[in-house]
Amino acid sequence: MIIMKEEQEQFMQEMFMKVGVSSEDARITAQSLTLADLRGVNSHGILRLPIYVQRLKRGLMANKPDIRIEKEDMTTAVMDGGNYIAQVTGRIAMRKAIEKASENTLGMVLVKNSNHFGAAAEYSIMAAKEGMIGIAASNTVPLMPPPGGKDKVVGNNPLAVSFPGGRYGIVSVDMAMSSVAQGKIRNAELNNREVPLGWGIDKEGKDTTNPRDILDGGFLLPTGGPKGYGLAIAIEILAAALSNSPVSKEVKSIYQLEEKLGISHMFLVINAKALIDQQDYNNRVETLLDIIKNCPAAYGIEEIYFPGEIEDNIMKDRLANGMVITREMELELDKLADELNVKRIKSFLKNRQLREGLV
Amino acid sequence: MIIMKEEQEQFMQEMFMKVGVSSEDARITAQSLTLADLRGVNSHGILRLPIYVQRLKRGLMANKPDIRIEKEDMTTAVMDGGNYIAQVTGRIAMRKAIEKASENTLGMVLVKNSNHFGAAAEYSIMAAKEGMIGIAASNTVPLMPPPGGKDKVVGNNPLAVSFPGGRYGIVSVDMAMSSVAQGKIRNAELNNREVPLGWGIDKEGKDTTNPRDILDGGFLLPTGGPKGYGLAIAIEILAAALSNSPVSKEVKSIYQLEEKLGISHMFLVINAKALIDQQDYNNRVETLLDIIKNCPAAYGIEEIYFPGEIEDNIMKDRLANGMVITREMELELDKLADELNVKRIKSFLKNRQLREGLV
Repeated sequence: MIIMKEEQEQFMQEMFMKVGVSSEDARITAQSLTLADLRGVNSHGILRLPIYVQRLKRGLMANKPDIRIEKEDMTTAVMDGGNYIAQVTGRIAMRKAIEKASENTLGMVLVKNSNHFGAAAEYSIMAAKEGMIGIAASNTVPLMPPPGGKDKVVGNNPLAVSFPGGRYGIVSVDMAMSSVAQGKIRNAELNNREVPLGWGIDKEGKDTTNPRDILDGGFLLPTGGPKGYGLAIAIEILAAALSNSPVSKEVKSIYQLEEKLGISHMFLVINAKALIDQQDYNNRVETLLDIIKNCPAAYGIEEIYFPGEIEDNIMKDRLANGMVITREMELELDKLADELNVKRIKSFLKNRQLREGLV
Repeated sequence: MIIMKEEQEQFMQEMFMKVGVSSEDARITAQSLTLADLRGVNSHGILRLPIYVQRLKRGLMANKPDIRIEKEDMTTAVMDGGNYIAQVTGRIAMRKAIEKASENTLGMVLVKNSNHFGAAAEYSIMAAKEGMIGIAASNTVPLMPPPGGKDKVVGNNPLAVSFPGGRYGIVSVDMAMSSVAQGKIRNAELNNREVPLGWGIDKEGKDTTNPRDILDGGFLLPTGGPKGYGLAIAIEILAAALSNSPVSKEVKSIYQLEEKLGISHMFLVINAKALIDQQDYNNRVETLLDIIKNCPAAYGIEEIYFPGEIEDNIMKDRLANGMVITREMELELDKLADELNVKRIKSFLKNRQLREGLV
């Protein structure tokens, strides 16, 4: 099934409203999750709708905002997210960091007592759209061992940094700290291929190139070993320790329907316009991106991309041509829609037959 | 030959003074390079003395400071390093960022027109010693292709983040953006071993596990592919574009004795004490590090380390037992010492025979 941006947003908004979220915040959350799908970050899009709705329904995530400023000065603030939807809280926090940066060149807002905030780049891009540099990071439930370990104590903490890129648009780096996504390991297993050394270890902590060893009680490893490990710990301290919040194993999994998650975020903004003339800045960034784009390509490669360019290209395509919802996902969403007495997702399609024909 | 910290510092200080550097700044530079050796970052220690001296002698690096503030506000400053020794300029800049953070919670100082600043962690640790969080980064001459490319346009830009770690001392992440250091590839070649996929590519840009392909006109790859690439570009923009400075190929190599390098740095400080009660902070960081240190170890592993712990352990050992200077390095240093009319390095050893016996 092919769905267009607005259709998916409408469906999701209705779902969130059915579990008590205000129309406006339901819209923001629906737009945020849809934006992830549009940018090709499918793991953070409509795929997450069922678990979000479950958590809101059970009161494990608040459906009404109770966001408080715990501490504030000219350049920084610590916000208690009141366990509300992180897509909403995150936008409020990033907006505040942007305001502080526009007044004092630098601004940082920490959010505690929050939830899964989706794709980190969405927040950093908010700053880039204002001509500023944005950094967004979050801790998460731990997924990886430290180098030499064999227990999940290190979060696959996302980090995004976005910059105005002159005539190139926005440059955006968005990464998590594991070597690869779990899906890549599953893919290798399905195709009977080995994985490179360093992607994961078996349950005893031994190096392996066999994807089954990793999936079968083993562990993903941090990207670059001590590098991804170090950055994950840095984010844990910046977002969580600094806001006096749960760290490592104290953070809960979104799929354990028992407790609130206790996730923390960090948003940092640098007002580029206060530091450098805009034309000079554009000249420098465009020079950098010119060099990158003109780099000779390896055999079989058609184009070199700057960070964030691939996601932008995917978004252009998906805005024009829509997004695929698999039959499996559709069935899961139908079940949830029936449960909540919302029209099924298909009925949101404006030209259903045509777009189904495209699948 | 085994040399103690003070002995190495004295030798290096004299060398720098002979090429026109003031006694005080020669001491700072000698201490900084020696600190890298003490922490096990040998690539940034006395190994660099000959090229530093060459550059100072030829006027490619200024031997007198002419450091100017180009732009300044409450939270930020842009400094022109006057092509002076980056170890000195970097300390001045980080000190200024710390001052700004102690007044306004956040502080950032950019340095342009600078040089190789040594180990990035030295600067971020300055902030951590004051109970603050320090970030230090620099661009460098480009060394790697972007994903899909086959030319050196991406710098192996270092990034360090340091935190007060409560009773654990200081937590410090220090990384560059290549998959591994070139030395590891050379080692694999010497031992006739393959390297994991993803470490490098051959001169045509093709994936390879043969270390010779990488060394023979090929390229190191960014760590984690798009991850290391993205972070390298982020640092290029933060340090260099934002300070209106050379980017990518515009930056020169320290070993080309023709032009100044045109390197830029970024120093960012967050005053943790303004955001959180110190006891709460220590409790959070110690809880995190307790979990890490108590993580079950993989087969054959004796201890799990937090970021920066290994370097601290090496430093304790080297402070007590000294550092090794290879015969090859000694000969190179002797040649340089003779040239500059400085006493040879051996004559700086306080108890030469004893320590030579240790080698």
